[in-house]
Amino acid sequence: MAEYKAPITDMQFVLYDVFKADRLWSQWKSLADLVERDTADAILEEAGKLATNLLAPINRSGDEEGVKWSEGKVTTPEGFKGAHHTYAEGGWVGLTGNPEYGGMGMPKMLSVQVEEMGYSANNSFMLYQTLSSGACLAIDKHATEELKTTYLEKIYSGEWAGSMCLTEPHAGTDLGIIRTKAEPQPDGSYLVTGTKIFITGGEHDLTDNIIHLVLAKLPDAPAGSKGISLFLVPKIMVNEDGSLGERNAVHCGSIEHKMGIKASSTCVMNFDGAKGYLVGEVNRGLVCMFTMMNYERLSIGIQGLGCSEMSYQKALSYAKERLQGKTIINGKRSDHIADPIIGHPDVRRMLLNMKAMTEAGRAFSTYVAMQLDTAKYATDETTRENAEKLVALLTPITKAFFTDIGLDNCVLGQQVYGGHGYIREWGQEQLVRDVRIAQIYEGTNGIQALDLMGRKVVHNKGEFFNCFADEVKTFISNEKSNPDLAEYIEPLERALNNLVVLTAWIIEQSANDVNEVGAASVEYLHVFGYTAYSYMWALMARTVLENKAEGDFLQSKLLTANYFNKRLLPRVYGLTEAIRAGCGPLYTFSEEHF
Amino acid sequence: MAEYKAPITDMQFVLYDVFKADRLWSQWKSLADLVERDTADAILEEAGKLATNLLAPINRSGDEEGVKWSEGKVTTPEGFKGAHHTYAEGGWVGLTGNPEYGGMGMPKMLSVQVEEMGYSANNSFMLYQTLSSGACLAIDKHATEELKTTYLEKIYSGEWAGSMCLTEPHAGTDLGIIRTKAEPQPDGSYLVTGTKIFITGGEHDLTDNIIHLVLAKLPDAPAGSKGISLFLVPKIMVNEDGSLGERNAVHCGSIEHKMGIKASSTCVMNFDGAKGYLVGEVNRGLVCMFTMMNYERLSIGIQGLGCSEMSYQKALSYAKERLQGKTIINGKRSDHIADPIIGHPDVRRMLLNMKAMTEAGRAFSTYVAMQLDTAKYATDETTRENAEKLVALLTPITKAFFTDIGLDNCVLGQQVYGGHGYIREWGQEQLVRDVRIAQIYEGTNGIQALDLMGRKVVHNKGEFFNCFADEVKTFISNEKSNPDLAEYIEPLERALNNLVVLTAWIIEQSANDVNEVGAASVEYLHVFGYTAYSYMWALMARTVLENKAEGDFLQSKLLTANYFNKRLLPRVYGLTEAIRAGCGPLYTFSEEHF
Repeated sequence: MAEYKAPITDMQFVLYDVFKADRLWSQWKSLADLVERDTADAILEEAGKLATNLLAPINRSGDEEGVKWSEGKVTTPEGFKGAHHTYAEGGWVGLTGNPEYGGMGMPKMLSVQVEEMGYSANNSFMLYQTLSSGACLAIDKHATEELKTTYLEKIYSGEWAGSMCLTEPHAGTDLGIIRTKAEPQPDGSYLVTGTKIFITGGEHDLTDNIIHLVLAKLPDAPAGSKGISLFLVPKIMVNEDGSLGERNAVHCGSIEHKMGIKASSTCVMNFDGAKGYLVGEVNRGLVCMFTMMNYERLSIGIQGLGCSEMSYQKALSYAKERLQGKTIINGKRSDHIADPIIGHPDVRRMLLNMKAMTEAGRAFSTYVAMQLDTAKYATDETTRENAEKLVALLTPITKAFFTDIGLDNCVLGQQVYGGHGYIREWGQEQLVRDVRIAQIYEGTNGIQALDLMGRKVVHNKGEFFNCFADEVKTFISNEKSNPDLAEYIEPLERALNNLVVLTAWIIEQSANDVNEVGAASVEYLHVFGYTAYSYMWALMARTVLENKAEGDFLQSKLLTANYFNKRLLPRVYGLTEAIRAGCGPLYTFSEEHF
Repeated sequence: MAEYKAPITDMQFVLYDVFKADRLWSQWKSLADLVERDTADAILEEAGKLATNLLAPINRSGDEEGVKWSEGKVTTPEGFKGAHHTYAEGGWVGLTGNPEYGGMGMPKMLSVQVEEMGYSANNSFMLYQTLSSGACLAIDKHATEELKTTYLEKIYSGEWAGSMCLTEPHAGTDLGIIRTKAEPQPDGSYLVTGTKIFITGGEHDLTDNIIHLVLAKLPDAPAGSKGISLFLVPKIMVNEDGSLGERNAVHCGSIEHKMGIKASSTCVMNFDGAKGYLVGEVNRGLVCMFTMMNYERLSIGIQGLGCSEMSYQKALSYAKERLQGKTIINGKRSDHIADPIIGHPDVRRMLLNMKAMTEAGRAFSTYVAMQLDTAKYATDETTRENAEKLVALLTPITKAFFTDIGLDNCVLGQQVYGGHGYIREWGQEQLVRDVRIAQIYEGTNGIQALDLMGRKVVHNKGEFFNCFADEVKTFISNEKSNPDLAEYIEPLERALNNLVVLTAWIIEQSANDVNEVGAASVEYLHVFGYTAYSYMWALMARTVLENKAEGDFLQSKLLTANYFNKRLLPRVYGLTEAIRAGCGPLYTFSEEHF
């Protein structure tokens, strides 16, 4: 069975050659002292070793064993507790954490690589970690100094974990109708009462405490999403000296039996007057929670990317070893009894689809991370604001496109294995089961598409969109005179023009019927995703050509860029035509017609 | 949880209104006495009841319990044995079987409906049954009178079952390199020795005997696929009086642990000098086995279709019940706290994608079955030959397109459920796991595409293809003057022209480089599939308009036809552009570039 090999060469190519991360870091004051290329490389190496040697080995056993629930306690599979301690001791939970409270303060451009490696190796394990990191972000941004001092360092250090409690049985996508109540107490705290479901890492045995971030409503709160507040509810109360006190009135009622991520606990959490503390302002809870949610959305996107990479590595290794049928190279049929299946056109097609989409995805996740870092660290305000708009625009694409493609790639990797792909021992079927949740949780991909199309594109009449389109247009006009680059620029230009015209058309249509937004959204997100990937490939191709670089790795970048543009990018034209049919064909149906 | 409701109204619409099955049956001598509309309707009703009341109730429990192996014996989950007896007593295994040996002699047009219902209700259960039916077909066509007399009736009656033993550890797709040996014995029998893997229903406890059809090589056989012969190897020897005798030397060494179809046994079968009988001529085994394989390929396609239907039914029922978010109908936001999610554009999109593809699939499976019946029963030789060519052409499409779309539809149905789709109790995730195998076994979908593109299109320079294209062209030119039908004819005509030009282009290209066949094949199969579905929708629309039919069911046909043409059919143009990039982008990569 193929072992996981961290794609560090490619990560370094994207970081330093394509996006000049080291130069950016040196320009940003608050980062300049913390990170340079050597530090970053050491972190990549170390993360790669952890993924290969610590997390990958307990991935399949974790799936087989699963988490166990008994009388409110959740036991993780063998090896998870030990792995968590090693991971925590390395400071990985606080990799991007605020240094004032013990975080390492590393840039997002670096941490997306680390997350990708973790997800490649072990989806379930990484979910516990990324929920902790995300909870810290929200606490750091919105909580009082007292809460930050009490909680951040312990979560960064991995001694405690975080969770995110939003969904209720009747309220998933529609958080405005949640029923969990928070009653103000004389000491300024709140008593939280209600039931939350689908809570990832709501209960487990990896840490001494779990810090829940919980959406709830005050008794007099306005109806709908404007009446939601955010509370920090510890599983175990924390004494003034920081030691652990009494058990809080929050318990895990049961866990779900799922298709995959079986080593990750998905909990029903009962809050029975549990003591909690307000985070941020009253009735502004959803805004505060979005700090965590946007982090998690990018992270879940990277889950899709990490699974794609793992699936590709396994499929490639199998395709080189498995002998079946004779292949025809340069017009000649081989004279072996059977050849490695990598020589067959359709196997090549499957591998190259995976490779082209995964490498573009890695570049894109790094690009989005660069915008996040820019928004946080850039000294110039206009630059920061532009980056913020790009982050808002691209986050739903990263979440939904990476995970839709993630499923495609895991299915392709399974297909390369033939019948062996369906058998548990090879691990490909686990990847399919594990990655499938990523299209559903953290806001379904349909909701991501609606967020993109509605809030991020139509609502601001294309303002955020233009930030992206203008950047690509500038790139195209700068590079258009370069004949070597023409074959990568031309398909990009055509796709961008298509996207620009399509975007304007949808904005216009939706002025007449708001259902046009929802009807266009999923296909639009895909058209955008493929177009953005074409931009990534053009950036990568330029880097290779600029450096007059040689060698298989860089040559392969040019070939893969070409493959992407010729064999995958054209999908946007079919999708565009479908979008232009509008919402009419959806709404001519009454309920009886279904 | 949604129960299965057999879509009998739609089946009757397709059978009688669209394809005039009852008229065909009355015209074909050997069928005229056996079946008319009343018989067929009674069979549909009864099969629907069986699916709903007998098979669906043991579907999830079968998945949870799985098959068990112990010391060579395989135990099926609780309820399977009883269900098999009821199914067998109804004569369902022999539904299309040869009446001379106890079969019911029903037409394929009817049996594809019955198979669809069975797969909707219980994939694992149906696999045992369809393997028996398929084995009978091969025995009936190729075996000696003695073998037919001994085995057919017992399998038709469900007392014994069939299996299909092809794959070996080193030989899946590439059957030419199998190692299983068959040594001739003085009494005319053979001793078969070798190991077969991935044998569905190779061992189980549903029947008293299992009749294996096994590919093996004689000691002096030519190398490759021209040296393969077919043998009938009973698990338990049959005495001259038909009673069961000694155990034969074939045993189940183990079973696989799989992603899904967990109630279906997937066996390693060890043949240790097992007694077998030649079926068909020496070294012509692959041709004989193809009688069974072609049956199974269509059947597995129908597995994809049945899963699509079940997924749609469940998702529709959930979408009508689940309240989440407010919907906007006719420009007005509802004033409920939350509305059924079926009102949201993206949920409608998912449901309509499933509905449009499933109903077209049902029409297409019936159309292919009509060609099979025509090839078997038509009195005119030219008509029979034309139908045979269509069957050859369309079988790989049915297998691969139905199952690719089957996965899409099960994933969509799961997505409609949001987080609940990932939880085992709702059953949607089982459908995804169960349907996934259908893209892999019975020749992977890549192999189906290669069969279509290579053997069925390029090899005969488009002769088979023209049988299909000419039929559609005739339909178009006959109906073009009908203004009511124009909106269904125009997109079909455009798609057909695209397919015709594309087919000619690939035939031309592949004369220079045979790898063009493999490089185009998968996308080509999809372009063909969507175009064929547009033809099905035009046929259905014509039927509705011809009959001036009213009511929701028929109105919905017109709306769904329109939805398909506007929102799904355009995919072919993106795929076509990708195909036209040719195999170049695949073969510029050397192995180091991956």
